[in-house]
Amino acid sequence: MYISDVSIYLPEKVISNDYFESLNGLTNSWIVERTGIKERRKAAENENTHTMAVKATEALQETSDLSKVDLIVSGSYTPYDTVSTISHFVQHHLGIADIPSVYLSSACSSFLNAMELVEGYFAMGKAEDALIVLAEHNTAYNNDSNTKSGHLWGDGAAAIRVTKEKISEHSMEVIQIKTAGAATVGRGIDGVVLRPFDGGLSMPNGRDVFINACNYMAKSTQNILEDNQMTMQNLDFLITHQANLRIAKNVVENLEIPLEKALNNIEYLGNTGCAGCAIVLGENWRNFKKGANIVISVFGGGYSYGAMLLKK
Amino acid sequence: MYISDVSIYLPEKVISNDYFESLNGLTNSWIVERTGIKERRKAAENENTHTMAVKATEALQETSDLSKVDLIVSGSYTPYDTVSTISHFVQHHLGIADIPSVYLSSACSSFLNAMELVEGYFAMGKAEDALIVLAEHNTAYNNDSNTKSGHLWGDGAAAIRVTKEKISEHSMEVIQIKTAGAATVGRGIDGVVLRPFDGGLSMPNGRDVFINACNYMAKSTQNILEDNQMTMQNLDFLITHQANLRIAKNVVENLEIPLEKALNNIEYLGNTGCAGCAIVLGENWRNFKKGANIVISVFGGGYSYGAMLLKK
Repeated sequence: MYISDVSIYLPEKVISNDYFESLNGLTNSWIVERTGIKERRKAAENENTHTMAVKATEALQETSDLSKVDLIVSGSYTPYDTVSTISHFVQHHLGIADIPSVYLSSACSSFLNAMELVEGYFAMGKAEDALIVLAEHNTAYNNDSNTKSGHLWGDGAAAIRVTKEKISEHSMEVIQIKTAGAATVGRGIDGVVLRPFDGGLSMPNGRDVFINACNYMAKSTQNILEDNQMTMQNLDFLITHQANLRIAKNVVENLEIPLEKALNNIEYLGNTGCAGCAIVLGENWRNFKKGANIVISVFGGGYSYGAMLLKK
Repeated sequence: MYISDVSIYLPEKVISNDYFESLNGLTNSWIVERTGIKERRKAAENENTHTMAVKATEALQETSDLSKVDLIVSGSYTPYDTVSTISHFVQHHLGIADIPSVYLSSACSSFLNAMELVEGYFAMGKAEDALIVLAEHNTAYNNDSNTKSGHLWGDGAAAIRVTKEKISEHSMEVIQIKTAGAATVGRGIDGVVLRPFDGGLSMPNGRDVFINACNYMAKSTQNILEDNQMTMQNLDFLITHQANLRIAKNVVENLEIPLEKALNNIEYLGNTGCAGCAIVLGENWRNFKKGANIVISVFGGGYSYGAMLLKK
């Protein structure tokens, strides 16, 4: 099983921290110190998860032949339509009839849950060329003026082609995927919430989220390396969920790996939810050297977590 | 792979057709003639998909030991929380740490997509005792006064235990599951929609939905029987998606099977979305005789469709 191509889509509009100073008094230095975030993208009026997913898919079509796609899986916790889902919208765009198409959410962990769903279809022999699309439209559900979390979120999308066989020199082998819920821990079920008809997106228990994000992403990274008889020395790059630069740095310090091995985009994109890690992967896609070992480690509301080991 | 137990939860409050006559002028006879629906349930103020899913799970715990559950999959297009999802809420209720927990939607087809996701985890050896929870809170997103579709929807939930091995005399073997998107067909992507921040739940192209629901559910039933060298004579019971009694009757007539082989609850529950078929299965769970062949055939927004063949 291989990740064979990745593309991204980012809305044009940039929202800098200055916007929040005039809105709710949070200054640029206050936001940067606590989150690392300097700016984020905001979808235009006529954009949503569906249009952004199609834009990311169109970008993927420029480098990948998607005519043989036989499974579409989408992830998002900020859906535009939960009936005619992102997956169906992308299926309509591709014009490929009668293939399994499913939308899912495990909050910010959905990329890995989508990968594991694809892994299952491959294991059953029901698919061999899958398209994963991840899109978050946080600004549609966010209350900008919320001083706890209004400044954290950004919009963006990624499209990932996952193939059973190695089809390109850029293909990365998926060595292992592990996902789980951690709803039994701390403020799992109300640390971060998105209730469409009851307050939208908010983070009522940010401190608990922060602590568990640090712990789980470090632990999951260690575990997946140990499962594969590898140590931190074998790890070339770590991509953690892009929630907060301080979390990313905390994980790296706890694991005692050099900061330059951690790839981030939080500083200029904010928290783009389940698309964040995939966007990082897409931004660096052509730069990974043959033999590189990459771990993607995620944590999100619910709580939810997981890790994936890739080898170029 | 077996469905080993099923339970249901229905909110107490019953909404009869009389409610609509005073609201928007639709009479009982008009609604019954066009849909077969006489009444439907409505969740209370303090209920939502999460609480209903837990109630269905609690009902399942009365007849099934859920302490070994190692995978939770939930389905719904009417979510209360897309970050701390139904699956996480149910995981918190069960108190089982570190098991894969994922929420999905393929509109009214989600039961079968959830089954197929479980099938994949079983195939990978990553789970063997799964809990599927399906919950729809249509009334949270519905506009009652919409004369096209306001009267169609009801609320309800089901919980299904799916095991790799046969663990009970009531266990039904899952012979085959097939799912697909049909977004390329007709008004696939805008036949039925649920846009949380853009109009909620509506059915702008009901006629196209009706025609395709009839066609796809009949075709899928035929196909899955043919795949297993069976004919309509081998079919003991057919459970179609509970959208409209006229659709159910149309499918049965097209397939030339006796009306009594079709199991329905639409008359007293309305369209309970992805939970509808599972609720029918739960209502009849102890009545199926050994050897019975049952097909569940679904169709939903997106469009999405699928069929599952069960053998008691």
